[in-house]
Amino acid sequence: MFIVLKKQFLMIPGPTMVPERVIQAMTRPVINHRGVLFEGLLKDCTQRLKTVFQTNNDVILFPSSGTGVMEAAIANFVGKNEKVLALTVGVFGERWAEIARRYGADVEVVATEVGYAIDPKVVEARLAKDTNHEIKVILVTHNETSASVTNDVQAISAARGSHPALLMVDSVSGLGAMELKTDDWNLDVVVAGSQKSLMIPPGIGVMAVSAKAWAKADVTDNPKFYWDAKSARKALEKWQNPYTPPVSLLFGLQEALKMIEEEGLATIFVRHRKLRNCIRAAAKALGLKLLAQDYCASNAVTGIYPPEGVEAKKVQKIMRETYGVTMAGGQKALEGKIFRIGHMGYCAISDVMVTITMLEMTLVELGMKVELGAGVRAAQQEWMKA
Amino acid sequence: MFIVLKKQFLMIPGPTMVPERVIQAMTRPVINHRGVLFEGLLKDCTQRLKTVFQTNNDVILFPSSGTGVMEAAIANFVGKNEKVLALTVGVFGERWAEIARRYGADVEVVATEVGYAIDPKVVEARLAKDTNHEIKVILVTHNETSASVTNDVQAISAARGSHPALLMVDSVSGLGAMELKTDDWNLDVVVAGSQKSLMIPPGIGVMAVSAKAWAKADVTDNPKFYWDAKSARKALEKWQNPYTPPVSLLFGLQEALKMIEEEGLATIFVRHRKLRNCIRAAAKALGLKLLAQDYCASNAVTGIYPPEGVEAKKVQKIMRETYGVTMAGGQKALEGKIFRIGHMGYCAISDVMVTITMLEMTLVELGMKVELGAGVRAAQQEWMKA
Repeated sequence: MFIVLKKQFLMIPGPTMVPERVIQAMTRPVINHRGVLFEGLLKDCTQRLKTVFQTNNDVILFPSSGTGVMEAAIANFVGKNEKVLALTVGVFGERWAEIARRYGADVEVVATEVGYAIDPKVVEARLAKDTNHEIKVILVTHNETSASVTNDVQAISAARGSHPALLMVDSVSGLGAMELKTDDWNLDVVVAGSQKSLMIPPGIGVMAVSAKAWAKADVTDNPKFYWDAKSARKALEKWQNPYTPPVSLLFGLQEALKMIEEEGLATIFVRHRKLRNCIRAAAKALGLKLLAQDYCASNAVTGIYPPEGVEAKKVQKIMRETYGVTMAGGQKALEGKIFRIGHMGYCAISDVMVTITMLEMTLVELGMKVELGAGVRAAQQEWMKA
Repeated sequence: MFIVLKKQFLMIPGPTMVPERVIQAMTRPVINHRGVLFEGLLKDCTQRLKTVFQTNNDVILFPSSGTGVMEAAIANFVGKNEKVLALTVGVFGERWAEIARRYGADVEVVATEVGYAIDPKVVEARLAKDTNHEIKVILVTHNETSASVTNDVQAISAARGSHPALLMVDSVSGLGAMELKTDDWNLDVVVAGSQKSLMIPPGIGVMAVSAKAWAKADVTDNPKFYWDAKSARKALEKWQNPYTPPVSLLFGLQEALKMIEEEGLATIFVRHRKLRNCIRAAAKALGLKLLAQDYCASNAVTGIYPPEGVEAKKVQKIMRETYGVTMAGGQKALEGKIFRIGHMGYCAISDVMVTITMLEMTLVELGMKVELGAGVRAAQQEWMKA
């Protein structure tokens, strides 16, 4: 293959592709973060974010990655030695549990086989046994990118029932790609990141906090300054941040949130579901095994096993170097065993079709017997369904 | 089909898609067009353009579209009442002939059936009869976008032999997409535009002028100021333009010429040929009739007849509105009868694959019996050829 001009497709589960409109917004001159222009900007972003979170709760921003706002949730709402029930279906669930341990919590893990979601009945049964209400906080990953699995957060919240534990949701890669009703589902804390379906570069963590969670923050005394949610809430009274916020990213966030409003949340969720269906149909048509079970397959990312005898990293290498399509690999135990296609945020059917087309050629180049066009056809048929 | 985020693909035969690097270069602050920075910019662009033209002749720039520099060629090198032989295979060949008529030339047209190139033997025979050397100028379109046809300019130059007529070539849509050896092929005047394979927006016309053509300019006295090539050549001694040049476009041109150098002309020509082969193979696999004959099919644009009973404009409309792929229609006699896919300049195999994928879905939506994926497969097989 000769070295030829190719366009780049960032098909990883975050950071994701950033729209031109957002890039342009971020090139505006930097403004005073204590001035009136910034106050208008932060107010607008905060109000628009509430729509995306589907909440009337406070929404606060941290200048951080997703992991930062996950730590902020623990630091503010989990007391030392408290019992925490961590529902984990992969690497990011494990990470949140580990953060809680670092803050001295007594973490009990409920895990699943890879590719499966948490069974709400298991949660219900565990909480039913907790008659003394020792469990103070439940942690759950909404969308687990490492396993390409989405947990049914609504059902898990229902399984909690009248148990008083806080339900804290890591929706870093879920928010904006799939349904998340913070208020209707009675979620106490929800955290999200900017570099996923919010369509801007990494650097902003977002957190929605219920009244019940705020009350918990009043009696939780972990050392913190940067992650202090109450000081962030206080600064919001003046539409400011306690310390220097990433001004240019906020210009980008405002523009991205306008784009989300224009397309509409309902349409965005349908788009993500259809993109997932296209990729899964293509993988099946090409005889490839999927990581996640159908019933809990993520709308934001799809993990795929390479054909027998082919290294996943070789597939990724050819895709990236020959065809300009960057996919992710497996994490931890899955390293080298799968590749993952991110399809969240500023991702269109054209990006998915390019990925499938190039994947077919890559598999042929690796000596596999693949019917060229078969994956594309399956994806086309899926896309054209009403 | 629900209204969903889609990305835009400008698949017309110019203006073409502009690379991000070029867009960014054009956002630099405007500079003084009589200052030292501009002189360096124009010198660099001019020298890089000579490489693309494969010439040691003078290369001059006009702030104009392609039509502007076509007129400049007539105004400078064609005298009133002179006999001009216009070799036309489509709309832009006819346009150049018409410009010559407006300047009072006695134009004799050699035309072809649509989809066919000029036969160099016909040119040779006509010139052989011109024993008194009445024909002073030969006009030929290198790449005729309206017919998706490329003329064999090298063979036409050879057919001219020792006849003293100037050979003037409209390579507005050819330069940078396909081989053009200005010096080796003994071309007296070559004109090109910025909005095609030079990968920048419309606004710069380029002209390469041989010593023989300059001598002709000395005895040609059409009224002209803006199009005065000799004044442009004189201004070039100070690396300036006689009047205000489009500074920002020149920033973009410089960046685009760097990209051309990086990919290399030879690779670029192979890319364009392969993109053409992919599209033609796909069209044939889908049972669609091609406008241009195989032997002269353009590497820059491909005209395609819609299936029997389907309006070309309906195909274009669905492609554009549902799938974000903008194609061109037919011109003049071909209006409404064909659609044309531009694949020159900043066009990658991913763009072509998206176009084919979306075209298949469009044809199905129009009720055609199309095997989904068949066009893509044909294009994949073509692309993977050594």
